[in-house]
Amino acid sequence: MLTVINRHRSIRKFLCDPVPKDILHKILMAGTKASTTGNMQVYSMIVSTQPEIKHRLWESHFKQDMVNQAPVIITFCADFNRFVKWCRQRNADPGYDNFLSFFTAAIDALLVAQNIALAAESFDLGICYLGTTTYMAESIIDILDLPKYVVPVTTLAVGYPDENPGLTDRLPLEAVVHYEKYIDYSEKMIDEIYRQKELLEETKQLLKENNKETLAQVFTDNRYTKKDNVAFSKALLNVITKQGFMNNG
Amino acid sequence: MLTVINRHRSIRKFLCDPVPKDILHKILMAGTKASTTGNMQVYSMIVSTQPEIKHRLWESHFKQDMVNQAPVIITFCADFNRFVKWCRQRNADPGYDNFLSFFTAAIDALLVAQNIALAAESFDLGICYLGTTTYMAESIIDILDLPKYVVPVTTLAVGYPDENPGLTDRLPLEAVVHYEKYIDYSEKMIDEIYRQKELLEETKQLLKENNKETLAQVFTDNRYTKKDNVAFSKALLNVITKQGFMNNG
Repeated sequence: MLTVINRHRSIRKFLCDPVPKDILHKILMAGTKASTTGNMQVYSMIVSTQPEIKHRLWESHFKQDMVNQAPVIITFCADFNRFVKWCRQRNADPGYDNFLSFFTAAIDALLVAQNIALAAESFDLGICYLGTTTYMAESIIDILDLPKYVVPVTTLAVGYPDENPGLTDRLPLEAVVHYEKYIDYSEKMIDEIYRQKELLEETKQLLKENNKETLAQVFTDNRYTKKDNVAFSKALLNVITKQGFMNNG
Repeated sequence: MLTVINRHRSIRKFLCDPVPKDILHKILMAGTKASTTGNMQVYSMIVSTQPEIKHRLWESHFKQDMVNQAPVIITFCADFNRFVKWCRQRNADPGYDNFLSFFTAAIDALLVAQNIALAAESFDLGICYLGTTTYMAESIIDILDLPKYVVPVTTLAVGYPDENPGLTDRLPLEAVVHYEKYIDYSEKMIDEIYRQKELLEETKQLLKENNKETLAQVFTDNRYTKKDNVAFSKALLNVITKQGFMNNG
């Protein structure tokens, strides 16, 4: 178990070999074993394998090659549609058209996704999360015919790896763990925590490629800019509203 | 790996035995192996073991006994505080005070949480997620001294089990998986999907205890009511705003 967890690295190049049906079934079943709020299972997984659909998803996901390449793309959705329909058929009045319900369903979906990621890796498949899912939720809703009360929150590309990257660096454990209460970071602590990352050969190359003075600037100026974040914030809030989750009284 | 995933059930009664330090360390390390957006690691874990702090958390988490009982309570937070401080110390202008950034950080935190849950279970520890975290985020922020750009999104109670419950029922796989695109549920499908759950002995007892006609009514009228959901939606949106994540342009 720990072996599988500890050897994780994202895979972005896939062989064209399909994922055998029995393995896919075991992986999907593993997803359903995750904890879920009140055992409501307020999530759905959309498993896309057809080239035409993957091609449209590829366009949404900023044309990242792996979306076309990976034999299986799984879109994880916060989903109260099924539960609300059940309530209505059972003479019960659902009150799940609000932000709390969206967030609850998103939590459900994300725990399922991580079970699926690890189950896939235990079969020597490679996975990569697509953060573009929340940025492009509106077009993904359109491609996958997602109804009201369904919002995509993350996506996994799954397939046999065609690359063998090393492990990604991580901050030291004490950077992300606090004991008893949160101890806020002093300037000195920030310097210490990020030192190792800043000294990596990879970082030096990034600074050169991006013509930046610090690694932080690569993030703020190029990778995750305020302009993009603001635009995607508006888009995501609009999607949550449009899918019926913003009736907060 | 699949064995650990497939035998999961939530544990709500714990022995008072502490979690050995080396095991806790391995579990926390396993958390950091999860995928994280752009390798930013925009999450924090607060590990609480002191009775006084657990007692205050117990009050926030609707006085659920397991919060006092479990030797370790881990609160998982969406955290851009560390990253923003780093940006500012590195002559970079962070644009992470918006909803997209909050949601990105929440995804990071939830994937870490599920790694931790599975790692703990691989050491024969029991875990339970506390959904009350988002309802009571404001008071948890107060108890744990969480600064701006930090929002708690879920909590795990962790310890050695003092009960041995069976597996929880789940909907059939075809209820939560769609192939290629989302196929919306017909009335007949809803009936079929929920039939097994509705026929459980446990369900019959619940209807009697709650004096309800259908299981769905137990959810809508007692467990997850519109009134509570609306109140907690407002509270959660206020917390996200107060912690600095609602400057969307």
